[in-house]
Amino acid sequence: MYWFKNLTRFASPAKHRAKFTPTLFSLQHIHQFATAGDAAAPPTSGLGPTKKPDKPRVVVLGSGWAGCRLMKGIDSSLYDIVCVSPRNHMVFTPLLASTCVGTLEFRSVAEPIGRIQPAISHEPGSFFFLANCKGLDAKNHEVHCQTITDGLQTLDPWDFKISYDKLVIASGAEASTFGIKGVKEHAIFLREVYHAQEIRRKLLLNLMLSDVPGVSDEEKRRLLHCVVVGGGPTGVEFSGELSDFIMKDVRQRYSHVKDYINVTLIEANDILSSFDDRLRVYATNQLTKSGVRLVRGTVKDVQPKKIVLSDGTDVPYGLLVWSTGVGPSSFVRNMDLPKAPGGRIGIDEWLRVPSAPDVFAIGDCSGYLESTGKSTLPALAQVAEREGKYLAELLNKIGKAGGGYANGGDDMELGPPFVYKHLGSMATVGSYKALVDLRQSKEAKGLSIAGFTSWFIWRSAYLTRVVSWRNRFYVAINWLTTFVFGRDISRI
Amino acid sequence: MYWFKNLTRFASPAKHRAKFTPTLFSLQHIHQFATAGDAAAPPTSGLGPTKKPDKPRVVVLGSGWAGCRLMKGIDSSLYDIVCVSPRNHMVFTPLLASTCVGTLEFRSVAEPIGRIQPAISHEPGSFFFLANCKGLDAKNHEVHCQTITDGLQTLDPWDFKISYDKLVIASGAEASTFGIKGVKEHAIFLREVYHAQEIRRKLLLNLMLSDVPGVSDEEKRRLLHCVVVGGGPTGVEFSGELSDFIMKDVRQRYSHVKDYINVTLIEANDILSSFDDRLRVYATNQLTKSGVRLVRGTVKDVQPKKIVLSDGTDVPYGLLVWSTGVGPSSFVRNMDLPKAPGGRIGIDEWLRVPSAPDVFAIGDCSGYLESTGKSTLPALAQVAEREGKYLAELLNKIGKAGGGYANGGDDMELGPPFVYKHLGSMATVGSYKALVDLRQSKEAKGLSIAGFTSWFIWRSAYLTRVVSWRNRFYVAINWLTTFVFGRDISRI
Repeated sequence: MYWFKNLTRFASPAKHRAKFTPTLFSLQHIHQFATAGDAAAPPTSGLGPTKKPDKPRVVVLGSGWAGCRLMKGIDSSLYDIVCVSPRNHMVFTPLLASTCVGTLEFRSVAEPIGRIQPAISHEPGSFFFLANCKGLDAKNHEVHCQTITDGLQTLDPWDFKISYDKLVIASGAEASTFGIKGVKEHAIFLREVYHAQEIRRKLLLNLMLSDVPGVSDEEKRRLLHCVVVGGGPTGVEFSGELSDFIMKDVRQRYSHVKDYINVTLIEANDILSSFDDRLRVYATNQLTKSGVRLVRGTVKDVQPKKIVLSDGTDVPYGLLVWSTGVGPSSFVRNMDLPKAPGGRIGIDEWLRVPSAPDVFAIGDCSGYLESTGKSTLPALAQVAEREGKYLAELLNKIGKAGGGYANGGDDMELGPPFVYKHLGSMATVGSYKALVDLRQSKEAKGLSIAGFTSWFIWRSAYLTRVVSWRNRFYVAINWLTTFVFGRDISRI
Repeated sequence: MYWFKNLTRFASPAKHRAKFTPTLFSLQHIHQFATAGDAAAPPTSGLGPTKKPDKPRVVVLGSGWAGCRLMKGIDSSLYDIVCVSPRNHMVFTPLLASTCVGTLEFRSVAEPIGRIQPAISHEPGSFFFLANCKGLDAKNHEVHCQTITDGLQTLDPWDFKISYDKLVIASGAEASTFGIKGVKEHAIFLREVYHAQEIRRKLLLNLMLSDVPGVSDEEKRRLLHCVVVGGGPTGVEFSGELSDFIMKDVRQRYSHVKDYINVTLIEANDILSSFDDRLRVYATNQLTKSGVRLVRGTVKDVQPKKIVLSDGTDVPYGLLVWSTGVGPSSFVRNMDLPKAPGGRIGIDEWLRVPSAPDVFAIGDCSGYLESTGKSTLPALAQVAEREGKYLAELLNKIGKAGGGYANGGDDMELGPPFVYKHLGSMATVGSYKALVDLRQSKEAKGLSIAGFTSWFIWRSAYLTRVVSWRNRFYVAINWLTTFVFGRDISRI
């Protein structure tokens, strides 16, 4: 088990523990930097266990919807907050698809964690670490982390430990490839800002390359064939944005090649399967009307310039976006903890990891243990956010009752368990149309509307959900400028 | 000579010329793509010579100040415009330094060429090609180009030719390293948007890494030591922006490490040597006051974590920005054309390249031939812009007189030659202070002011110079939000 290998590698004898005093770190550290380059014997510096009168420490792994909503809700007068994540911002995922074509700017959908929980910027005991968690040592209440060095030669990745009083695992899930060959190499996912940036750069590059004299019609069609695999909300919204971009901007700004660009959406079953049938039909018609080709099929193989469907058809592409949902990350898979059906970290109704004291798991990385008799919740932002909110309140309650420190509050009355109430789903399909499905479940009755009204609801709803006023302002400004001046096409 | 090697490689016998018919391209091309991967025998497709009733074709190499101002001014009813450049936008360089620390967004300083000259987006005969020019065949009125593939494995760089009626070389200059070892590898220039992005990412990475537990004070100081080499306007403005960022944002958002961050500006002579002495003294005081250390020295060697000065001093750094001016690019150096003193392409008073009919050169890549008795103009945006404007009018005049086609208008009366009138220089030094030097030359008398007023002049002057209304709007909005919410620190 990966984390276990790590664990032993870090396991530190008593004399070693003495090192948990700042001065000693530095000394040992200066040495480490003196001998930088040799990967031998990684140092084991870090944040040692908290002692009164210090505040207890909540360590949060991840900076997605779950983790950020949690950090936002935690009372920084009760806890020190330490966040460990490979990115220093939260991505407002519902609007990510819009950034690929320039409807929104990348920065408008990214919220720095320091703005979500200001304590992290100025509280002496609260930190954000740009790092990956490599392992959990539940016995000693420690996590083992390694800094991100972004491939810089001048920096060696740096290992350190953090002792926690409460640990919240909110490390999210991984895009699922179903083991199909070539997906990771040639397809682009749509989960992070850099994914959107890559899609945008590639789209503009292909538009310009297809304009080069002497490129054959066949090659033009390939370069400008955008294929989206996966008909969930992300895939549908991206296809919608793309067709908007093509109809409103490409026709005008790339008139030489406008007739060669096409969008194909490949889905094995129905698109937007979680939505009301009526809405699904509406979405299908809407997408078809705006020029998106809907293909029912399963991808067998992904090659540099084409994908092969299970029925043997070749589909040449210039841009391939993969949005077929998510599955457990390798970090979660390698964790030696009881799992929920589907391989997520198993939790009880209070979002605790029963086998590990003071450890909680929320968001896409966690699922109810079979023993709870509850079924795993869908991997949705709204689930993650609700769990983060609930857990923040729970931890504040524990903290107020003086149970904030490690192994504290085990025998406490936690109050009502977490209950998820679905508020409905939304998706835009481009050209000022969207779907709003307010039924609480696929079976339940309830309001479900489609069209301009719901597009308006979609925009205003998300605008109000955007975390900071700064970005709310920017999103509004972006929408306004896109409407007035069209989308920006400079490839930077 | 590089371009000459290219030339021979491209030299095409008569039968080859036959290929200048669309259908034949495609055929030959489909073949080429069928055998994609083998780099043997590059195709020689392209845009053939223009014939009446087609419009004559102006080919512009480069999309900087000179080239873009030229394209903006050319009458698209007289000429087809073809632009060849490795980037599809113009960078508003005077505001680039502000984007590194998030005062402005990257997109706010980039103008898509399609917006600068709309004909390129929709005129059937006008194009933008994302490519590098590899060589000039003045005898046959052809340039040889190769597409940018951005390191994509799925695309082979693609060679093509363009026949021109008039050619304008506006390919700019290269950052000069004075042959100092390690500069290209370890320093970041500040000339393109991606440079600013790299600086920003590195700055934020270092801020976060220095916060990791166990990093020694020594290493923290190194990581957070920003060194700027070169005391011209760029270097000074960047240092000013950095100190603003540190004083206003870092102190607040990275309070753990705020005391470790430092800015050092290294210059061999005086900073802002082209400015009025009084202003220079003011700038020096201003920068020192805002915490920028001014060091007079010459860099001898650049290593991954430190630079070595000629007096032997080691200067450890975490971020190194190099802005010591520009020199002729390799493309220009390799061109077999008479050069001006300093190695630029030699031009006469009408910005023509005398030895090559119908070829003009403007901006940083060109300089007056000794025969003209005029001295080379400084490498300034305002020079390049004025030359572009002049040449656009000249070409329009030639076109109206029917001399637009190749070898046309040779015996025409061109009217008054280009005369450069310096309007003055501006530079901001941070904390709402700037310098405005309105003297026409270093010796001349004239108004020169410093302080908040000139900062205000600096901002409004540049705001009005920003090309499109869209970006004017965005720059204003950026300045407003920076003022209200502070700078954005999400590392995307």
